[in-house]
Order: sequence, then structure tokens, then C-alpha cells
Amino acid sequence: MKIIKSKFDSFRHQTNIIIYGTNTASGRLFDLILLGVIVPSVFIVILETVKGFIEKYHHELIVLEWIITIFFTLENLLRILSINKPLKYIFSFYGIIDLMAILPMYLSFILTGASVLTIIRAIKFLRLFKILKHPKFSSQSIRLKEALITSKGKILIFIYFMVISSIIIGSVMYVVKEEEIGFTSIPTSIYWTIVTLTTVGYGNISPITPLGQFIASIAMIMGYNVIAVPTGIVTAQFTNNFHRKTVSDRINPCPNCGTEGYNNAKYCYHGTVLK
Amino acid sequence: MKIIKSKFDSFRHQTNIIIYGTNTASGRLFDLILLGVIVPSVFIVILETVKGFIEKYHHELIVLEWIITIFFTLENLLRILSINKPLKYIFSFYGIIDLMAILPMYLSFILTGASVLTIIRAIKFLRLFKILKHPKFSSQSIRLKEALITSKGKILIFIYFMVISSIIIGSVMYVVKEEEIGFTSIPTSIYWTIVTLTTVGYGNISPITPLGQFIASIAMIMGYNVIAVPTGIVTAQFTNNFHRKTVSDRINPCPNCGTEGYNNAKYCYHGTVLK
Amino acid sequence: MKIIKSKFDSFRHQTNIIIYGTNTASGRLFDLILLGVIVPSVFIVILETVKGFIEKYHHELIVLEWIITIFFTLENLLRILSINKPLKYIFSFYGIIDLMAILPMYLSFILTGASVLTIIRAIKFLRLFKILKHPKFSSQSIRLKEALITSKGKILIFIYFMVISSIIIGSVMYVVKEEEIGFTSIPTSIYWTIVTLTTVGYGNISPITPLGQFIASIAMIMGYNVIAVPTGIVTAQFTNNFHRKTVSDRINPCPNCGTEGYNNAKYCYHGTVLK
Amino acid sequence: MKIIKSKFDSFRHQTNIIIYGTNTASGRLFDLILLGVIVPSVFIVILETVKGFIEKYHHELIVLEWIITIFFTLENLLRILSINKPLKYIFSFYGIIDLMAILPMYLSFILTGASVLTIIRAIKFLRLFKILKHPKFSSQSIRLKEALITSKGKILIFIYFMVISSIIIGSVMYVVKEEEIGFTSIPTSIYWTIVTLTTVGYGNISPITPLGQFIASIAMIMGYNVIAVPTGIVTAQFTNNFHRKTVSDRINPCPNCGTEGYNNAKYCYHGTVLK
Repeated sequence: MKIIKSKFDSFRHQTNIIIYGTNTASGRLFDLILLGVIVPSVFIVILETVKGFIEKYHHELIVLEWIITIFFTLENLLRILSINKPLKYIFSFYGIIDLMAILPMYLSFILTGASVLTIIRAIKFLRLFKILKHPKFSSQSIRLKEALITSKGKILIFIYFMVISSIIIGSVMYVVKEEEIGFTSIPTSIYWTIVTLTTVGYGNISPITPLGQFIASIAMIMGYNVIAVPTGIVTAQFTNNFHRKTVSDRINPCPNCGTEGYNNAKYCYHGTVLK
Repeated sequence: MKIIKSKFDSFRHQTNIIIYGTNTASGRLFDLILLGVIVPSVFIVILETVKGFIEKYHHELIVLEWIITIFFTLENLLRILSINKPLKYIFSFYGIIDLMAILPMYLSFILTGASVLTIIRAIKFLRLFKILKHPKFSSQSIRLKEALITSKGKILIFIYFMVISSIIIGSVMYVVKEEEIGFTSIPTSIYWTIVTLTTVGYGNISPITPLGQFIASIAMIMGYNVIAVPTGIVTAQFTNNFHRKTVSDRINPCPNCGTEGYNNAKYCYHGTVLK
Repeated sequence: MKIIKSKFDSFRHQTNIIIYGTNTASGRLFDLILLGVIVPSVFIVILETVKGFIEKYHHELIVLEWIITIFFTLENLLRILSINKPLKYIFSFYGIIDLMAILPMYLSFILTGASVLTIIRAIKFLRLFKILKHPKFSSQSIRLKEALITSKGKILIFIYFMVISSIIIGSVMYVVKEEEIGFTSIPTSIYWTIVTLTTVGYGNISPITPLGQFIASIAMIMGYNVIAVPTGIVTAQFTNNFHRKTVSDRINPCPNCGTEGYNNAKYCYHGTVLK
Repeated sequence: MKIIKSKFDSFRHQTNIIIYGTNTASGRLFDLILLGVIVPSVFIVILETVKGFIEKYHHELIVLEWIITIFFTLENLLRILSINKPLKYIFSFYGIIDLMAILPMYLSFILTGASVLTIIRAIKFLRLFKILKHPKFSSQSIRLKEALITSKGKILIFIYFMVISSIIIGSVMYVVKEEEIGFTSIPTSIYWTIVTLTTVGYGNISPITPLGQFIASIAMIMGYNVIAVPTGIVTAQFTNNFHRKTVSDRINPCPNCGTEGYNNAKYCYHGTVLK
């Protein structure tokens, strides 16, 4: 019994190193295989909706789907088995995604009805987030996330401001519509304003009277210029994070007198070479 | 008489704390209730314009509108009663918005005629600005406003430059139009140029001759590149405000010798630990 | 004769102060009148192209045009008379614009033919640039111009890169077109690529085959991301100019020991208060 | 034999100076001639696809094409002959472009079939990259390239994030489509999402149901705001590179005491004038 437990512990340890670690050759190989399965698995779900494709390769797609699902199920089981706190993993962001990635196929036994299945199948795209766990990207994506989280408050205010502006400009357009085509209700007018403010400009709804075109012009110039605001917020945050990192890297105490905090200095004020 | 006055003063004081303050539990509750009324009140006005909706729920909407209007009227009265300088509040930005938010319903008794009422009803959307008074957003929105106000001058110059460019490119397009469709007058051509320069691109008017497409290409590349200007202005302002705040936070005088202004220094030049 | 010369000199001097200066009340008044003439003069030219407008107000417009032209002619004459180096002014940027602003009306005597006249009339829009000479805007517009001139080199490289990309992507689209509609020649394909890369997106030409949509997607994501490049260039320049100004404002020598260049310091290292 | 070798060596050396160097008058002339040939050569390939043009000038175009090809062939031969390590040049980026620029015409003898030839002909556009070798642009384009390479990692993460978002939003749109027109398959929905997220907005596919327009609005606001991310990354990089250059330029050691790293200081702490 003890031997089995000891063997299982050894197996758990090694599996942990392969699945979660990235320093060993087998760990890197595992990450590569995972990548090599996620990408085609997403492509299959996408291609299933292309007309003529599913009729032609129906059988092959089902088989492929099951191979992928079993692979992810095994990966999921190994992850849960080899980690110290399985529950913490299961309810983590990536734990939930891992579960979502395999659930749809098993649910397809119970549930029937095409539209429900399509919705569930689309959840599998969340697998793509797993790639961001890859060591090559994780450090960069963490820094991106940091900068975005710090500037979240200001960006939310800005989005709220955009929503108010869209509602006000949209209802103004609805009020002055008279001869305009397409501005049938305030929600539609708000939709048009968002299309205009964000400079998307589909063009299926667009003003045709001089007054409507004048209001649209103001909305466009406004939308064109206020893009500076989210950009300014995020950039200031990036520049600052960048700077902070650069500065903190440089604040090495002088080995001679312990003085710290020189700005790019190469010599301590007492003459000792700093770097 | 004195007791009444004293009681009224006490009531005024407590109302003031609830309505304007955010440190007490009742103050926060009041802010929450306000939010919970503003958002649905705006939704109602929006939905009233959707065909089929007003016919179905006409009676319910009228009742809801009146409940909301009475709630805002009460809020408005309490705000005026509980503040020290009522006139200053009434003529402030939010005071005017508060009045505008309740006026339309009372005006609907006097004025008749659908189009006038629609215009007035749309004013109620200004209520949404009241949410920005919420303590959670106010500090962030003040900083955003500061940065925008500081860079206002440069942005106005830039918008003016865009307007000149639109007029010139627009009239050039009108002059070379010949076989083009849609460029019927200079105002329309200017409208098209704004649509193009701001990268909105509706597509209902677009050049079809080689010369027209060439001029349009120049306008597009210009519009694509000059977006850098407002962004650069606002970003420089944000970065600077950010930096100023960071620096001023750090300029603590050395407790030993009073020297100030060390850049990220941890030690005074005389060896005293700064932080 | 001497008296006349002396009187003329005095007149010249006073005119110079009024026209070029902005410190006197009459100087400011002159700038205001100029503004008040430029804006309507441009509006007239624009409105002349609106159908039904010129038929209705033909006579009034001609009279107004002549009043404006005579006003500008007088202004131009006074500018030339009152300046020390008239030739330098005449061949300066604003000198040429001033001439262009009055020439079209006088040329209309000699030249006949509607299309030629329309072209010449559009030149009058250049008058709008005169507003930028207004003291309120000049300092801001100079700083904008400075930042743009400094980053001109990099932006030109970037535009050139965009043109190459447009040519290459455009010709790729032409090559793979087969079933696509609208990609009839490489110039048209290049035009479409510019429309796509600059995120304008008119939509009158757009790919319909999977391969075309795939190439278009790459062009769009590329266009969406590379906008960062001109923005980054101009922003870095703005931030730098901003910083330089801020720093140079602060580098005041210590009045006691002459030491300079403290970064935001309030005290000289020898204890003297710096500001 | 020796004389010939010596003469050839001298010829090689002089050719090298003319072709690769830019300090001599003939070197600058060579660069200018090259420019003067590349630009028209590209125009010819573009114009060949315009209907009616090739029928009219067929003979002239063929002759011109051959003149240009022979010129580039000669240039290529001289480059290979005059360089010390010919193989290193041939397999370099510009070496391959140089070969690609001449190959199509020679291949046209062997290969027949219009579509194959068009593809090959388009490769000639790569010649335009040769202009970036011009000394006037090289320093600027190197700095641009540096900043882009440094921020490559973060931008790739961002593009990947955009692709995931497009797939998820696209499949959500496909799932809710019901009454929508154009969202026939997930690939098409993803294409629409990319068109929307990048604010291009062609408008040939666009949502018409309230739910579809709501999802589209979220995608648009998201796309409008997240443009801040690539811009922020590149700008932070530019600002930093700019700053680094500025700082490193200023870190001149004090000629008196050897102290370095003063931030914009004009005087050494010991009183010596720094610049």
C-alpha cells in the first residue's frame, strides 16, 4: 500500500513538473502538443458552420471532436490529480475554461436541439485563452493586464461618457429626423451614433438632410478627437510603468557609502563607480 | 416658533448629510437609490420611441413617468432646502440638469404637439450626468476633465485645422467632380470629406473616378495620420499630470537638514534615510 | 513735401500698429473685424454651390462678394504700405494667401467659363488660414507646428511604408480576385487597400470570397495596429517638447552659489531657497 | 594577367564606392538614378492592369519593361561583383529583393499563362523597398524599426487577444443571428467582427435586430477603446528610446572630477561648468 502511495506521489510530482513546469524538455514538449491540439480544435468548430463542409466531412469531424475531447479530458484529470490544491485549480479562471472546453461534447448526449448545441459548442473557443498560459507569452500578457487594470477606472468613466453622448446625440437625431431614413426609434438612433462616434461607419443608416449631416459631422469630429482620451490614459500608464521599472532597476545602493536613488548616475557623489 | 425653526435646522442639516454627503450609510443608500431611478427613467424614454411598445404599455409608462418625476421633484426640493446657498445650487451645472430632468413632464400639461414634447423629453437624458456626481467616479472624472481642459487650446486649433482642411478638400472634390455621383454641392462635399478624414467612411457617397479616388486616398492617409495630433496632445498632458503628481508626492523634505526635491532618492546627501 | 512724407510716415506707423499689432484696442478691433469678414465670405462661396440658393439670391451674393473683395483689397494694400519690407511680405505664406483671396473676383472679368471660375473661387477658402494669425491661437499653433515639423521625417517614412504596403496588398488582392467584384485593376485594388488600411471602409468595394476576406482581415488588423506608429512618433515628440519646456523653466541658477540644473529642487545643496 | 587583376580590383573598389557609398558625388548620383528608375518601373506594372491602357501602349510597355529589367540586372551584377562577400549579399534581405525584381521578366520566357505572370509581375513592387536603403531615410527607418521590434512581443499578444475576441464575438453573433442577414457561417461572422473591431465598417454585412445591434455596439466601443493598447505600447517605447538617447547624450563626465550622470545639469556639484 505504501509503495503504491509512494509511486503515486512520484507520478504526481513528475506529472506536475511536465504539465505546470516549463524548464524541462518534456514540460516544453507538453506545452507544444497542447498548442498543436487547441488550434485545430477551434478550426473544426469554425468550419462546422460552413455550408457544404459538414455534409461532406460529417463522420471525420465527429471522430476528430471526440479525440480532442478525450485529450482535453485526460489533460484536465492530470492537472487536477497532480496539483496540491485541486479545488483551488478547478475554480480558478483557467480551471473553469478547462472544464468548459470538454463539457459541450458530454452534454451533447443529454441535450438535443441544434441551436442549444451551437451555443455550447462556441464555448470551446475559450480554449484559445489557454495559449496565453504558455511561458513565452505569460510575462508580456501580465504586464499588459497590469497597465489595463490600473487605468480601468478612467476608461470606465470614459466609456460611460461615450454612452451618455451616444444617447444624447442619438435622441437629438431622432428628434430632428423628419426626412431622414432609418432613424425609426431612439434605440436605432443611439446605435447609429455609436457606429459614428467609434468611426466604424457602416453606412446602412446615414443622414441625408443638411441638418442631419451637420449633427453627424459634429459627432464624427468629436468621435475622431476623443479617441485621444483612452489612448492618452493607457499610454500614460504604460509610460509610467515602464519608467518605474527602469528607475527601480537602477536604484542600486553605492557599495561604498550606501547612498541610493541616483538618476542614471554612473558615479556616486563620493566618487565610487556605481556600475 | 423657535422650536420649529430649530427642528427645521436639524432636519436641514441631516438632509444635507444624506443628500450631499457620502460618508454615512444613509448617504450611500441615497446615492444608490438615485442611481436605481435614473437608469430605468432613461430606459423608459428610449423605449417609448420603439414602435409597438408605447401602444402596448401606454398606461404603465405614464404612471412610471409620473412616479419618477415626483421622486426627482422631491429630491430637487430637498437639495434646495438643505443647502446653504440655494441660488448658487440652482444656477450650477447640476442644478440646471436637475431642473431640466423634471420640467418636461410639467410642461406637457401646457404644451401640446408631439414633436415639441419629444424634444423636451429627450432632455431627461441629462439625468445620466448626475451619476458622475457619485463619489466612486468623481475623483477620476475630475482628473480626466483637468487633462482635457489643459489641452483644450491645442485641440481647438487642431479641430479648426480639420475644418479648414475639410472645406478645402471638399471644394476640390466638388471642382473635379464631373463624373462623380453625390458631390452635388460644396456643403455635401465637405460632409463627405469629414466622413473620410475622421475615418468613419459611410460609403453612400464615394468617389468613382481615378482622380476622385486619388484625392480621397490623400484625404484618408492624412486623416489616418493626423489622428496622432489630438492623441499626442492629450497623452502628453496625461503623462505630465501623472508625472507631476508622482514627483510632488515624493518631494518630502529631509527631516534632518530640510533639503528637498530629491528624485526618487532614499537617502539625503548627508546620509539621513528619507523614506 | 516733407510734411506729406512725415504725415505718411506717421500714418504708416499707426496703420502698422493696428494691422500687425495686437496690444492696442484698435489692433484687437481690427483682428475682430477681419474674423467677422472671413467667416461669412467663406460661407457665401460654399452656399453658392447649393442648388436653388444662387438662383434666389444671385444679385445679393454678387454685391456681398464685391464688398468683401474690396475690404480684403484695402487690407492688402494697407499691409503692403505699412510694412518695412513689402516684398518680403508679398512673397511670404500669408502674403500669397492674401493675394489669392482677392484675385479670383478680379480674374472673373477676364476669364469666362463656369468651371474655371469655380476652381478659382475655391481658392478663397485659404482666407480661413488668416484666422490662425490671430494672437489667441498663434502661440498654440506654433507649438503644434514645431512638434509636427520635428517628427516630419519619421512620419514621411511611415507614409511611404503605408504606400508600399497598399501597393503590395492591393496587387495581391488583384491577383487573387477571380470571383471578387470591384477589383478591376491594380489602381482600384490599391485604392481599396488604402480605404481598408486607414480603417475608413466605404464598403462599395469589399471582398466576398473567403481568401479575399482573409487578406482583408490581415490588412485591417495591420491598419488598426500600425496607427500606433504615427501616434507614437508625435506623442513622443509632444511629451519631449513638453518636458524640455518644463525642465528649462526650472533651471534657474541658485542666487547664492550659481549652481544650476536641480531637478524640481526647492533648496540648493548649500541650503539656499531656490524658489 | 596581374595588370588585369589589378585593374579589376581598382574597378571593383570604385564601383563599390559608387553603389554602396553615399559620400561621393557619383555615389549620390547613382542613388538618384536608381530612385528615378524604381518609381516609373512600379507605375508601369500598375498601369498594365488598367483596361484600355495595355491595348494602346502594348509595344511601348514591353520595351520599357526590358530597359528597366536590363538596368536592374546590370545593377545587380555590379553589386555582386564589387562586394567582398557576394554570397552574404545575395542571401540578404535586399539581395533577395534585387533578384526578385529582375526574375519575373526572364521567367516570362519559360512560363506562359496570364494569371501566373500577373502574380510574378507583382513581385516587382518589392523594388520600392530599395528606396529605404537611401541614406536620407535609413537612419530614421532604423529608429522606427528598433522601436517596433522592441514592442513586438506585446503587440503580438494584443493581436492574439484581438483574434480570440473576434472568434468569440463572431460566434456569438452567429449563434444569435436568427433574423440577421449575412451571418451565414462562423468564418463570415468572424470576418464581420474584425471589420467592426478595427473600426473599418464596410457595411455590406451589418446587424439589423436589436440584439445584434447591441452586441455590435459592445464590439464597436471595445474596438474603439482597445486601440489605445497598441498605441500605448509603441508610444511608451518611442518615448523611452527618445529619453534614453537624450539622457545618454548628456551624460558627459565632468572634466574636472570625472563625476557623471547629472540630469540636465549645467554645473558639476563642485562648481565646474559642464557644458
